[in-house]
Formats: sequence, C-alpha cells, structure tokens
Amino acid sequence: MAKIDLNCDLGESFGAYTIGMDDKVIPLISSANIACGFHASDPVVMEKTVAMAAKAGIGIGAHPGYPDLMGYGRRNMNVSPEEAGAYVTYQLGALYAFARSAGVKVQHVKPHGALYNMAAKDYKLALAIAQAVKDFDPSLILMGLSGSESVRAAQDIGLPVAREVFADRAYMPDGSLMPRSMEGAVIHDEEEAIRRTVRMVKEHKVTAADGTDIEILPDSICVHGDNVKALAFVTQIRKAMEEEGVEIAPLSEIIKV
Amino acid sequence: MAKIDLNCDLGESFGAYTIGMDDKVIPLISSANIACGFHASDPVVMEKTVAMAAKAGIGIGAHPGYPDLMGYGRRNMNVSPEEAGAYVTYQLGALYAFARSAGVKVQHVKPHGALYNMAAKDYKLALAIAQAVKDFDPSLILMGLSGSESVRAAQDIGLPVAREVFADRAYMPDGSLMPRSMEGAVIHDEEEAIRRTVRMVKEHKVTAADGTDIEILPDSICVHGDNVKALAFVTQIRKAMEEEGVEIAPLSEIIKV
Amino acid sequence: MAKIDLNCDLGESFGAYTIGMDDKVIPLISSANIACGFHASDPVVMEKTVAMAAKAGIGIGAHPGYPDLMGYGRRNMNVSPEEAGAYVTYQLGALYAFARSAGVKVQHVKPHGALYNMAAKDYKLALAIAQAVKDFDPSLILMGLSGSESVRAAQDIGLPVAREVFADRAYMPDGSLMPRSMEGAVIHDEEEAIRRTVRMVKEHKVTAADGTDIEILPDSICVHGDNVKALAFVTQIRKAMEEEGVEIAPLSEIIKV
Amino acid sequence: MAKIDLNCDLGESFGAYTIGMDDKVIPLISSANIACGFHASDPVVMEKTVAMAAKAGIGIGAHPGYPDLMGYGRRNMNVSPEEAGAYVTYQLGALYAFARSAGVKVQHVKPHGALYNMAAKDYKLALAIAQAVKDFDPSLILMGLSGSESVRAAQDIGLPVAREVFADRAYMPDGSLMPRSMEGAVIHDEEEAIRRTVRMVKEHKVTAADGTDIEILPDSICVHGDNVKALAFVTQIRKAMEEEGVEIAPLSEIIKV
Repeated sequence: MAKIDLNCDLGESFGAYTIGMDDKVIPLISSANIACGFHASDPVVMEKTVAMAAKAGIGIGAHPGYPDLMGYGRRNMNVSPEEAGAYVTYQLGALYAFARSAGVKVQHVKPHGALYNMAAKDYKLALAIAQAVKDFDPSLILMGLSGSESVRAAQDIGLPVAREVFADRAYMPDGSLMPRSMEGAVIHDEEEAIRRTVRMVKEHKVTAADGTDIEILPDSICVHGDNVKALAFVTQIRKAMEEEGVEIAPLSEIIKV
Repeated sequence: MAKIDLNCDLGESFGAYTIGMDDKVIPLISSANIACGFHASDPVVMEKTVAMAAKAGIGIGAHPGYPDLMGYGRRNMNVSPEEAGAYVTYQLGALYAFARSAGVKVQHVKPHGALYNMAAKDYKLALAIAQAVKDFDPSLILMGLSGSESVRAAQDIGLPVAREVFADRAYMPDGSLMPRSMEGAVIHDEEEAIRRTVRMVKEHKVTAADGTDIEILPDSICVHGDNVKALAFVTQIRKAMEEEGVEIAPLSEIIKV
Repeated sequence: MAKIDLNCDLGESFGAYTIGMDDKVIPLISSANIACGFHASDPVVMEKTVAMAAKAGIGIGAHPGYPDLMGYGRRNMNVSPEEAGAYVTYQLGALYAFARSAGVKVQHVKPHGALYNMAAKDYKLALAIAQAVKDFDPSLILMGLSGSESVRAAQDIGLPVAREVFADRAYMPDGSLMPRSMEGAVIHDEEEAIRRTVRMVKEHKVTAADGTDIEILPDSICVHGDNVKALAFVTQIRKAMEEEGVEIAPLSEIIKV
Repeated sequence: MAKIDLNCDLGESFGAYTIGMDDKVIPLISSANIACGFHASDPVVMEKTVAMAAKAGIGIGAHPGYPDLMGYGRRNMNVSPEEAGAYVTYQLGALYAFARSAGVKVQHVKPHGALYNMAAKDYKLALAIAQAVKDFDPSLILMGLSGSESVRAAQDIGLPVAREVFADRAYMPDGSLMPRSMEGAVIHDEEEAIRRTVRMVKEHKVTAADGTDIEILPDSICVHGDNVKALAFVTQIRKAMEEEGVEIAPLSEIIKV
C-alpha cells in the first residue's frame, strides 16, 4: 500500500504574537516541522508545541532557520557553511531537549525558508546542514526538496533523507521547482493540484512545464495550516489520498533508517 | 583524599566580540560553564568552546541565562518560573547538541548571573530550573550557591547538586553570601582568601561576618579567567590546594549521581 | 468646554507577526502611542503606522519599552536609570525620524508596560525618563499615570506632563491604581466604567476603593484596540463623552506647553 | 589649500563587549561613523560615543547596518530597498537623538559593512538609502564609495555626497575597488599606500590595476582604530598630509551643502 507523509510548519508563534492555527492542522497531518527560536518561536512556544504534537502522535521535526526574526527567516543571508552547520546544531539541540523532556523522539529536520531554499541550490551549504544533523544523530531524517542539492548531500553522506513535493507548484523538466517569478509557477486550480499530487504519490510521475512526464519520488507533501483555506485544502488532499488507497503516515514509517 | 572542583565561565564571546581568555584558563580548571546564546555566546562560539573543553578533558556544563544579551544576563528579570524552566531546557539542549556532536557528555548545569542569583533566593524559580534539568536528564548535576534555595530545590526533587563557594567573598552567619552592598563583602587580601578557601575545603568551616565559625560543604570553587590577575589567582589556588593535599577534580568525580 | 484625550497603543506588529486592529481604532482615538522596536514593532511597521496616524491627523507619541521582545516589554527588568534614559532617547529618536520624514510632529512620549509601571513607583527611574525626553525636546509631553512618580518627576523638571486615567480600573484612596492582584481591581460593568470616566473628566472626582471621593485630574484616557470588544467599548466612551458635552482632542490641545 | 577628511567607525562596543580604541583614534580623525544598534552598539554606548565625539569637535555621522548583530552586519542580506530605507531612517533617528540631546549636529550618514558594499553595486538599494536620508534631512551628507552606485544615487536626487577612498586598496581601471578575492587587492607597503593617498588627494589621480592613471576625487579617507598598528598608520597619514600642505578637516568643511 502506498504511503505518504503530510508535513506542516508549526509552533511559529513568538511571545505575545500568534501565527498559525496549530490545533486545527495537527489532526490533519502526520509530521510537524517545529520552529526553533531563530526565525520564529521561543522556548515557551516550543514546549507547548512539542506537547501538542506528542499528544497527537505525529512525527516531530526540528525546523531551524536563519537568525532573522524580523524577516521570519525568509531573507537570503550570506552565512558560511560552518555558521549554518552550527546554527542547525544549536536549534536541533534545543528542539531535541523539549522532545526528550516530553518523552518523545525527534524524527526529522527540515530547514526553514531561505535556509531551505539556499541549501536546495548550494551543495556546500546543503552538506554542512546534513553533516550537522548526522553528527548529532545519524538516524534522523533530513527533509529536502525533491531533486535538490539538499537531497544529494544527505545521500552522499548516508543520512536518511525524505524528498518533499509541493501540491500546488509546477515542476521544470529537470525536476526542480519552477521559480515563483515565472508564469504558471503556482497551480491555482485545487482539483488539478490534487490530481497531480495523487499521481506523484501513486505513479511517481508529474507533468513538467514543457508537457513531458518526469519521474518524481515523493516521501512527503508540504501543506499549510495558517488560514482556513489552507486547512480546507489539506482536508481535500487527505480525502483524495484515502479514496486512492494511499495511507497518510509519518516519515518514520516511510523512510528506512 | 579531599577533592574540589574549580569551575569557570567560558565561551562568552559573541560574533565579532571577544570576552575571556578561555585558552589560558582551561588548563587551570576542572569544570567549564559554557554560555548558551541567551546572555552571551552564539552557535559558532559554542561549537569551538565545547571542542576546546572536550580536548582538555574538563567537565562540560551548560550556563543558561536570561534572554538579555544587552545586559549580559546580569539584570534581574521578572520571568515566571514556567518561562525560566523553558529557557533552561532550550539552552541546555543547545549545549547538549554541541557536546553530543563532539562525542562528549554534559556534566552539569550552572545558571548565569541574575538567573543564578534570583534562583538562590526564590524557591519557586529554583524548583522550575531544577525540574527542567531533571526532566531532560536526571543524572545531570545542578550547580548552586552553597546554602541557597537552588541547592534545596534540587535536593527536594532528587537531582544531583553541587554546592559552590567563592574564595573572595564574605559569608553571613546563616551561610549566605554577604551582599556586595555591605562593607567587607569582597575579601581583597588574596592570601587571606586562599587560607579561607583551603579551610572550607579541608575543614568544612568558614568564619562568618560576625566572627563565628559556620559549617560549609563546598563541592566547587568559582574562579574567573577574563584577565591576567584572575588567572594568577587561580594558579595560586591550585598551588595551595596541591600543597594541602587536595585534589582538583571535575564535579563528576565529586558528586555521586 | 471640557476636553479629554483618548490614547491607544499602536504599531505593535513585528515582521510577519500582527497585533492590533490599528486601522479600526485610529478613527476612534485622538492620540497614538507608537511602539519603537524594543518591546514590539520594527522599522517597516513604524513607518506604516506613522503614515496612518499622520493621515488621520491624530497626535503621535513614542511608546518606548524595555529591550524584551520575547516578553513584550511586560516583565520588570532591573535596568539602571542611566540605561533607561538612553533606551528612551534611542527609541524616541527612531520614532521622531519617521515622523519628521513624514512631515509631522511628535506630540508625546508614553513608556510601555513594565517601564511605565516601574517608573510610576520609582522616582529615580521616572526622573531619568523625563530628563531624557526633556534633553531631546523640552516641548514634548510625557504621559504618566495620574498620581504617579512619573508625573511628579516631569513636573519637578518642568516637562509638560499628561495625567492618564483608566476607565475600567479601581483607584485607592491615595489616587493610585488598585493592584490587579486585589479583588475589584478591574471594573467589569461597562456602564459603571463609563459613568466613572465621565465623572472623572467633568467633575475631577472618582470614588475610591474605600467609598470616599478623591480628586483626579485626567488629561487622557487609555483605551485598547486589539479586539472587537475593546473597539466597541471605545465607541461607547466616545458617545458618552459627546452626550456629556466633552470634546475628544489630542493632548497638544489639552496640555499647555 | 587642499582638504581631506579622515573618517573612522566608532562606538561599536555592545553591552559587556568592547571593540575599538575609540579614545585613542578620536584625536587623529575628523569624522566619526557611529554605530546605531543594529550591527553593533547599544543606547548606552551611543550616548557615550556621541559625547566623546562632541567634546573632540569632530564630525558626527550615523553608521547604520543590517539587523545582524551576530554577524556584525558583514553578511549580505536580501533585504528589500523599502526595508533598507526604513532601517536607515530608524538608526539615523536614534543617532540623531543622542546628538541633539548633546547639543551637536549630525554631519553625515555612512552605511556599514554589507549594507555599504551591497549599495555600492545596487542602484535601487542605494537610492532607497539616499532617499531615506534626504527625507529626514536633505542637508545631511551621504558617504559612499568613490565611483559607486551609492554616490550616483545620492547625486541623482540632489543629496550632498562624500566620496570615500581607501589608502590601502587597489583600484580597477573603472574606478571601482579591486575585489579582495583578487591578487594585489590590498596594498601592504605602508609607504606606497601613503604615497598613493597623497596623490589621490592632491592630484586627483591614482594608478589603477592595469598601470594606467585614472581620475579619483576623494573627500574622505577611511581609517581604522581598533588596534595599535591601525593607529600608527593613521598617525602616518596625518603626518604625510601635513607635510604636503593638506588640511585634515571634517566633511562639513569639504562638502558644499
């Protein structure tokens, strides 16, 4: 039976500030990427978020980002690979502590925003991140963009890796995401997006921007939970997967470690 | 044979800023309290400091503080016990990650500055800190001011605890430190300070401010390594201890866990 | 004709995080206290908020707080008067720059949260804040809790000062606010709250906790705009004031400079 | 009589951390670029630094940087022009407040580190910075790398601009700085560096990397004051200028506003 993970960023509130509808999206997903205090979140939020995810039994992941709270970790920063590796170790350790204190395991690491996007294209940066994760715990799963340098770097050093796909994004013939600056990068037709996602999961194929079918091997689908429309879309994806006989399961049941 | 630990704050540099003569003091001490990024330090500094301490074979401790980089964690903050506990978990986890990645253990936790001083007098705060440490790893040693609420709270929940004394500070008849605002709080005569310290370690006694002898049970002596004079003083303490047949040893060899 | 100012905290969003319904409350108030980047806000938010307040023609004030974004400036910090003065100068200058670039004046300064509350009781802290404001511009109005050390310090150095009252809070016989820890500190009956407020404005009297009438001289009423209920309450206050022949006006029309 | 300004970054200490030998370099320079709390400094340091510069009678400038204390503002950040403009306004206002409270004027603005370097090559970013300065005070002088987009943008909007040159750097035939990654980018021979600088100031010429002489119009020379060797070099530059009949003067005496 085909299996797929649904992952969502969680725990991105900070102090008096709230982002996300975490309690609403948790029942719909199988893995949570929990912010670690650099681009979002604080220790109190992390403790609460880990507790919620632990109670729901979903996979818990560290979601480290650049030290740019003001920019929500979305702005490229010219951080060296050594610095990036240390930032990942620091944030992963912090998240690990809340998980350990709550009696649950950390399943995966998914870099956030600009760190994720830069690593997808920069092998040295990707390698520094993967090595930092492996040095801490070689059984952790790194989540990276399908077809990216992040996936390649993790594979090169023998770190378990999960390939992430996007339901609502177009793909280039080489398997990379179509840049948002290009026409057609985002698929606005939800039914079309779901059809494509089901096909990726069941047939390992997607129609690229040039009309050709390319191979894609998805382990996890990225979903969002910060507004009502996003929640409705996740619900639809779940329903489509169930109808197609695809099981929603956390990464730990999908990736062999 | 009597044993005593010499502990020193380390790794308090930050980005382009340097504090401390870490490489000079490391050969003189047996335990290092390593800053964790809230009141001082950053991930790159932490990685380097853990590597230096690991190479020297000294005990490694987390040194969590208030989130007040501008005030170096020295300003009292009205943080709730719940918040303080989460801050300790976060910082302890971060330090743990660098230790684990370097293949070494974390030995102890010593709160920094205002967090240390406030917890010494506030049982609820002390308990939240001790519980956070215990929830993460019940075999870690909490270092607290001898005779303080921090020591009492750790003992109450069965967390291993090390009692810290100060070579150059006067004590009140109840075993508490004489406040710095009082005349005679700091002992400026170095020979006198060393004589008192040796007596604390060997006889478990110190002459309090009112001239009476009180009992004191020291596990560790706090020393400093941020200037040449402080380094000379540590060297003198080491020499005096050796002459008196006292062994300098990390906490892990002193405290039964 | 009696006049009163209605002031509200504004511009407390930060990066990707939103707090407040600024566009909804601006039409209802006469003075805005705009956060300055320490306890909340960032430069982009400040620029937008000043532009909105300038367009509406309401009084613009700096709302400086402690450097505690994680605690939203609500936690007491043991900052020295010299540090507090410098923090106020810094934040006031930042807000002034956005006002000047937008072609409008800064009318007042109202410290935020813990800084406001601590200064209300600590004359030295209050004096450092008032002096920092005066050194920058002696024609600025400092807003302080009616009957507090903040008001006294400003008066002592000849800085224009506005006395702030709270519609929904009980007062002690000495004119201070009843602490929130005491029973009856908050007046939950909205009609009662409005009746008391109208009386404060028109008769300069309020019934204290012991049942006696005390004198109170309000220049501004603190209101909130971060939720629908708060907005409804402001609307009611405005209506009551209009019915009673009290004009809502910014501080600059109330305080003689 | 030829005039030249000597500018140096000042006030880059932060909290308990010290950088720079400000008291030693102040007597040697004519203009100070004072850090504003984003990449370095804090309000207490700014207040002290402005007081020192004011007492010495040198030109006072704001030295705004990226919000990257951990990276000392030296790491490129993908900040939008709108964000950069707001960051400059904020930091300029903060520095202005300390100058105004001390009774002195702000003379100029010089962006720091990565912000300076990115603006030198990015016209849109340069324009946003220049516009932010002009909107605050059109008589302020923007200091930019000679031949850069920063100078061009300021000139395009009519903002006074000072062209900065480097004594110890090689220039390309188009007047741009040779990148540090190229062989020969830094001139290590101090006498050669000083000869070149004198020629730039007196003859408005410098020999470029290809051996040809190019025109250069320097208003200010960038010097450093963070170590003994740097201080000695500044002393030598001063001496050479005096011997050549060049007057050291702040920008306000050089640039027509």
